Amino acid sequence: MRVSLIFPEISCILLKMKKTLERGVDKMKVVKFGGSSLASATQLEKVVAILQADPERRYVVVSAPGKRTEEDIKVTDLLLQIYDRLSQELDASTLIEEVISRYQAIADIFQLPSEIMKKIRDHFLKLSQLAIEENDFLRDTIVASGEDMNARLVAGILNQAGLTARYLHPRDFGLLVTAEPGNARIRHSSYSKMAKWKNSQEILVIPGFFGVTDTGQICTFSRGGSDISGSIVAAGVAADLYENFTDVDGIYVAHPGIVHEPEMIEELTYREMRELAYAGFSVFHDEALMPSYRAKIPVVIKNTNNPTHPGTRITLDRTTHSRPVVGIAGDSGFVSLYISKYLMNREVGFGRRVLQIFEDFGLSYDHMPSGIDDISIILRENQLTPVLEEELLRTLAYELDPDELRITHDLSILMVVGEGMRQRVGVTAETTAALARKEINLEMINQGSSEVSIMFAIHNEQKAKAIRALYYTFFD
Amino acid sequence: MRVSLIFPEISCILLKMKKTLERGVDKMKVVKFGGSSLASATQLEKVVAILQADPERRYVVVSAPGKRTEEDIKVTDLLLQIYDRLSQELDASTLIEEVISRYQAIADIFQLPSEIMKKIRDHFLKLSQLAIEENDFLRDTIVASGEDMNARLVAGILNQAGLTARYLHPRDFGLLVTAEPGNARIRHSSYSKMAKWKNSQEILVIPGFFGVTDTGQICTFSRGGSDISGSIVAAGVAADLYENFTDVDGIYVAHPGIVHEPEMIEELTYREMRELAYAGFSVFHDEALMPSYRAKIPVVIKNTNNPTHPGTRITLDRTTHSRPVVGIAGDSGFVSLYISKYLMNREVGFGRRVLQIFEDFGLSYDHMPSGIDDISIILRENQLTPVLEEELLRTLAYELDPDELRITHDLSILMVVGEGMRQRVGVTAETTAALARKEINLEMINQGSSEVSIMFAIHNEQKAKAIRALYYTFFD
Repeated sequence: MRVSLIFPEISCILLKMKKTLERGVDKMKVVKFGGSSLASATQLEKVVAILQADPERRYVVVSAPGKRTEEDIKVTDLLLQIYDRLSQELDASTLIEEVISRYQAIADIFQLPSEIMKKIRDHFLKLSQLAIEENDFLRDTIVASGEDMNARLVAGILNQAGLTARYLHPRDFGLLVTAEPGNARIRHSSYSKMAKWKNSQEILVIPGFFGVTDTGQICTFSRGGSDISGSIVAAGVAADLYENFTDVDGIYVAHPGIVHEPEMIEELTYREMRELAYAGFSVFHDEALMPSYRAKIPVVIKNTNNPTHPGTRITLDRTTHSRPVVGIAGDSGFVSLYISKYLMNREVGFGRRVLQIFEDFGLSYDHMPSGIDDISIILRENQLTPVLEEELLRTLAYELDPDELRITHDLSILMVVGEGMRQRVGVTAETTAALARKEINLEMINQGSSEVSIMFAIHNEQKAKAIRALYYTFFD
Repeated sequence: MRVSLIFPEISCILLKMKKTLERGVDKMKVVKFGGSSLASATQLEKVVAILQADPERRYVVVSAPGKRTEEDIKVTDLLLQIYDRLSQELDASTLIEEVISRYQAIADIFQLPSEIMKKIRDHFLKLSQLAIEENDFLRDTIVASGEDMNARLVAGILNQAGLTARYLHPRDFGLLVTAEPGNARIRHSSYSKMAKWKNSQEILVIPGFFGVTDTGQICTFSRGGSDISGSIVAAGVAADLYENFTDVDGIYVAHPGIVHEPEMIEELTYREMRELAYAGFSVFHDEALMPSYRAKIPVVIKNTNNPTHPGTRITLDRTTHSRPVVGIAGDSGFVSLYISKYLMNREVGFGRRVLQIFEDFGLSYDHMPSGIDDISIILRENQLTPVLEEELLRTLAYELDPDELRITHDLSILMVVGEGMRQRVGVTAETTAALARKEINLEMINQGSSEVSIMFAIHNEQKAKAIRALYYTFFD
């Protein structure tokens, strides 16, 4: 500041330099657009505007075109139908033409150079020539075309709009995956390859949802595949931010179907998001954010239709702790298995044996709170059939010789989530008091194992009432 | 009742018969006396009076004579000294004479027939002739003499007082145990043997603390041995009640060292007792009540010095639920091990692997509450040395590759126990509110896994404050 008094001009230049550095010409963002953001020319115009608005947005990961109207069919679903027909050696040309027309309609509006649509058309037409027999990757190759060709289309649109964009196949980008059709995992060696694209001066448009195997096959990720791709690309080029554009403004504090017009979460940590996602917040698929989490890259969820809204930011550490609780989630479909045996805690390995039986049955448990002579195992109800349940109970009874063995169906898990709650004595007291006032019986409380949540098990029919009670305790 | 109107005399007779049946001439009680109840002639006179007061008291299990004054030495401790000397081939005759004199002093006061003391004296004098080498049962044989000879003495005293009593060695009673010195377990075959003594018309006086192996060796139980014997005898003769006479009126609702003059528990269930015992109520050794629990025999804790006090009754089901909470206990000396790993809940077998490592280290864990990506393991601090702790952490880090691994020392476990709490919405709310008011930070809450308790982990230094806060919430 002393400089500014003596040489105001120099100080002005310094300030500008600083500003430039802060704004970061060297900063870069990976932007992922979901299917609804890419379904029509109207939506794609918003995408163009979003990229024009911020030169840091230099890597674009795209989904396949989604629904244009409520009754519309997603391109991915059309491709699945094509796969079904082709794998039965049936003609799929009508469906293939329908897919092509979806791209053509957009290309026409943006008046794209004809060679782009030619490549797209040729690609789809070639699908019917793919080997059907002993082709483990047939389904993945057909379905991934939706994203692949959309990246080609979007790159063309961006160029047409005056941006310098380039379509890049995952093969060329270095996004290599394991050869597990429909369930690919990123190969660690990809990261050094992707890093070479770090300082690209062009906007790179990369199709989401799939990567390439060692032998050059197309192999797709599991559910939420494009989110995974975006997260991998962000980690691969060491982005400063991963922007995930959807059709909502961000993440609500509680489910809007249960609470009327709930608040929006400004910022939450990865841990908080995981806890909320576990109990029914369908934001990202579980594993989608793993690569950006490991690379310590913040994620922001934004709305293509309302891009000036700040959205919801997912970070490693939350800076704002104005309130102890960040969100309240509830999920149904749990059962609790109760085992009681006098002197259980003197039996070495009792808990391990219980878990071994679960593993032998291929069941994954969610929680296993234990008392002195009791143990409860909470698991997802959809894992059990009546037959399996009976078999499991019989095995537990035989192997563990318990005094009591009981199963409770129709439970919900309720999560009160927030990084701030650990610092504050009394969040638990407020929570339990709010639930008691509404006469909600707690089947289980689990607090302290996670630092950022309190978990309750309650009966399904009390779920909505409980979420509302907690929302009005901590928000509004 | 209609009978009583017509034939009042007959009704009167019927009533008398019913009363007799209810009072139960066929009913029988097993009575166990602790060392302090048998330390002096004054105490033994109380024992005689207790047996005279109730003809249903037909089986007496005795400990060795305890301390007569604060500075006195228990006979069992003298016997341990004798064992130490004899096993080093040193002379122990002075100590042996001291032990004999303890019995002699009592025999003199009760003017017992001389042959009783002759047998006792001969028994103790023979201890120095026992084989030292390759005798796994030397310690057990010497130490058990205290109980054994006391049973002989007590039988003599009862006979002298006009009761028909008989000293019965566990060998003759059929109390057979496994050949594990210092840690014997009852043999299942014992029960059919003991059942033959079911309708004894004499009062049988049986020494506690030990049984006899297949090869006729004396073998003692672990800690709390005479309590175990009493419980086994009660189960063996299918007693209606097991009365355990100590030097306290019963079990307090909270530790009297922490809460000023706490209330006494009238009745509690086995489950409640187990939970309270776990968290520091030193009533019975863990396994002592197992046989009576399995045989569904209620236990009552009574005071030899105040036998008209109803004491505390331990039953299978509690009939009185006037209050939701029956007792509050707290125990120090716990550590919590926290493991966090992003996407932990997707790793099949994670919990089982943690427990396997604990088993490999020979560590028993007490609780393992888990979050989505977190797991905490609560265990007793005394199991860990600094070296073992470091080794354990290193192994967990290596085998599980966690994001975070942390150990918290100096924790206390707080238990709020009561069969009634499950029926009442709000006990948890009251509990957490009381703790929050006192600014007690909860490291962990575990509710619902046990049906009769809520468990908290707090820091050691807040233990007393927490117990007082809860006592004044639920009692007084």
